[in-house]
Amino acid sequence: MSKKRFLSGIKPTGFPHIGNYAGMLLPMLQRAANTEYDVNIFIADYHSLNDANARKNLGGLSLELAATLLALGFDPKSCTFYRQSDVPETFELTSFLTNFTPKGLMNRAHAYKAAKAGGLSALDDEDMGINMGLYNYPILMSADILLFDADYVPVGRDQRQHIEIARDIAASVNAFYGEAVLKLPEGIISADTMEVPGIDGRKMSKSYGNQLPIFAPPAEVEKIVKRIKTDSKLPAEPKDEDNLLLKFHQAMATAEAHADFRKRFLPGGMGYGDAKKEVMAAHEARFGKARAEYERLMADAGYVNSILAEGAKKARDIAVPVLKRVRKAAGFST
Amino acid sequence: MSKKRFLSGIKPTGFPHIGNYAGMLLPMLQRAANTEYDVNIFIADYHSLNDANARKNLGGLSLELAATLLALGFDPKSCTFYRQSDVPETFELTSFLTNFTPKGLMNRAHAYKAAKAGGLSALDDEDMGINMGLYNYPILMSADILLFDADYVPVGRDQRQHIEIARDIAASVNAFYGEAVLKLPEGIISADTMEVPGIDGRKMSKSYGNQLPIFAPPAEVEKIVKRIKTDSKLPAEPKDEDNLLLKFHQAMATAEAHADFRKRFLPGGMGYGDAKKEVMAAHEARFGKARAEYERLMADAGYVNSILAEGAKKARDIAVPVLKRVRKAAGFST
Repeated sequence: MSKKRFLSGIKPTGFPHIGNYAGMLLPMLQRAANTEYDVNIFIADYHSLNDANARKNLGGLSLELAATLLALGFDPKSCTFYRQSDVPETFELTSFLTNFTPKGLMNRAHAYKAAKAGGLSALDDEDMGINMGLYNYPILMSADILLFDADYVPVGRDQRQHIEIARDIAASVNAFYGEAVLKLPEGIISADTMEVPGIDGRKMSKSYGNQLPIFAPPAEVEKIVKRIKTDSKLPAEPKDEDNLLLKFHQAMATAEAHADFRKRFLPGGMGYGDAKKEVMAAHEARFGKARAEYERLMADAGYVNSILAEGAKKARDIAVPVLKRVRKAAGFST
Repeated sequence: MSKKRFLSGIKPTGFPHIGNYAGMLLPMLQRAANTEYDVNIFIADYHSLNDANARKNLGGLSLELAATLLALGFDPKSCTFYRQSDVPETFELTSFLTNFTPKGLMNRAHAYKAAKAGGLSALDDEDMGINMGLYNYPILMSADILLFDADYVPVGRDQRQHIEIARDIAASVNAFYGEAVLKLPEGIISADTMEVPGIDGRKMSKSYGNQLPIFAPPAEVEKIVKRIKTDSKLPAEPKDEDNLLLKFHQAMATAEAHADFRKRFLPGGMGYGDAKKEVMAAHEARFGKARAEYERLMADAGYVNSILAEGAKKARDIAVPVLKRVRKAAGFST
C-alpha cells in the first residue's frame, strides 16, 4: 500500500533567527525526516509576493531558505522538495478554483478579517490598504494543497480554517462534477512549538530588531547575547523560570545540555555573565557547523538550484496528472 | 517600425445565433482582417468557467467557436489566434497581479456591483451566490491583456472600466519596481454593433428560446422564421421601421441586398409571408456555405485543434518573454 502524502509549505522571509528556527525550521526538519509518510515540502515563494520587502528578491530569499534547510541537515532525497513557483500548475488550479469559491468564504477568512480590523477604521473604506493577494491567499493555499492530492497538512491551532477552506472548495468542485476530482485533505494540528522571545523580552521579530540570527558569526552572537535583558539578581541568588537566558538556551541546546544548564542556573550560583557565555556556546554548538555549510552552499548557488530543479521535476510528476484530472472534468480536450 | 498590437478575446458560449453574429463574430472577423495592426485574437475559455452551463464542456465549446470563425472565413494566419487555456503563463501572471491589485478596485468593478445589486437583498449577505471567479475576473482579464504587451484593446462603451483596471494594475506594478515592467494598454471604443431582437421582439437570447442559430439547417430556419412576430398589416399597407423582419434581414444581408429589400418592403405591396421567405433566403445566402464548412470542420476536430496548437505556439512566443520580464523584476532566478 502506498504511503499517505503529507504536505507542508514554508514562506521565505530572509535570514532566519532562532525564533524562526524553533517555530518553523526545526518542525520542518522533523517532518522531512518522517518516513511514515510520503512527504512534500515546498518553499511558498508566491505567498511572499504579498510582502513589499520580499517582492524584489524572491529568488534570493528562496535560495537562502533552501541553503538554510540543507545546512541544518535537511535531506532533500527524503521527500519531494520544491519551490511553489517552479510548479506553474499551481496558478492554473488557483484560477480554476476561484470559480468554485463562494466570495462569502473569503470574507470570513481570518487574515482578511484581521487586516480589515487593523485598517484605518475612521475612514469609510474598510478595504483600505488591502490587496487582492491577501484576500485571495486562501485560494492559492488551497491550490498548493489540492494540486498534490495531499492527505495530511499540518496546521497550527489558529490555522485550522485554512484546511477547512481547502476542503470546502474541493467538495464544491467534486459536487459540481459528481466525481472525486480533488482529494479532500485533513489537517493535523501540529504540536505547539516553543515561542522564543527577543533579547528585549518582546516577541522575536526582525521589525523589532531584537533577533538572534541562526547564522550570525561568533562576534555578532557575542554582541547580541550581551544585550539580552536580565534583572539585577546577584550570581548567588536563585533565578526565575522566565529568565530570558533560560529560554534562549532552551531554544538552541539539546534537551540534555539544557537540563544540565537549568540545574546549575536556576538555584543560584551562576552569574549572568557566565550564563551568557553558555548561551553563546549553545548557539555555536547548534549552528557553528551549519553556518560554515550555509556559507559554502550560498557560494555554490548552482548546486542549490540543481537540488530545487530536481525537486521541481518530482513535484510536477505529481501535479501535472492532478491538473489533467481537473481539466478533463471541465471538458478541456487536452 | 513594428506594428502596434491589437488584442481581443471572445468567450465561448455554444452554438451562436444571429445576435452573436452581428454583435461579436462579425466585428471579430473584421478585426482579424485588419492589417494595420499585429492582431491577437483569443478564445477566453477560462472566463466561461464561471458559467455553470459551460464548465463541463469547455473543450467542446472552444472547438465549436474556432470552427465557427473558420467557417465564416476567418484566416488564422492573419493574426495570432489561440485559446487562453493553452497559455498557462496567463494564470501565473494573474496570481502575480493580485498582489498589486487593491481590493477596493474589485469592489468597484461593474460586473460585481451588478451581481450584488441583483442578489437577494432581503438576506443579510450581499455576497450571496457570488463566487470568486466573478469577483476576480477583472484581474484575469488584465493578465490576458498585459501578458501580450497589447497596445490596443477594443471595448464597448460600457466596458471602458476593464481597460482602466488593467492600466491601474500595470501602473502599480511599474511604480513598485521603478521600471516599465508591463505595457499600459489603451482602450478603443468599438463602434456600436447592431442589436438583433429575438423572434418575439425581446433581446435575442438562448435563455428566452427566441434565437435564430446561424448554422441551423433550412428546415429549422423556416420553422423559426415563420414564428417571427408580426403585426396584422395587410400586404398592401406600408410597414413600420421597427418591423422585426426588417431587422432580421438587415442582420444577415449585404448592405445592397438589404437596401433593395427595404425599398420593396416598407412602402407596402409585400406580404409578411413573402418577406419571411426573403429573410430565409438571406440566412441561406449568408450562412449556407459556412454551415457546410462548419459541419466539415466539426467532423475534423484534429485539424481545428492543429490550428489552435499552432496559434498557442505563436502566442507563447510572445507571452513567455513577458512573464520572464515580470519574474526578473520580482527577483526570481529563472
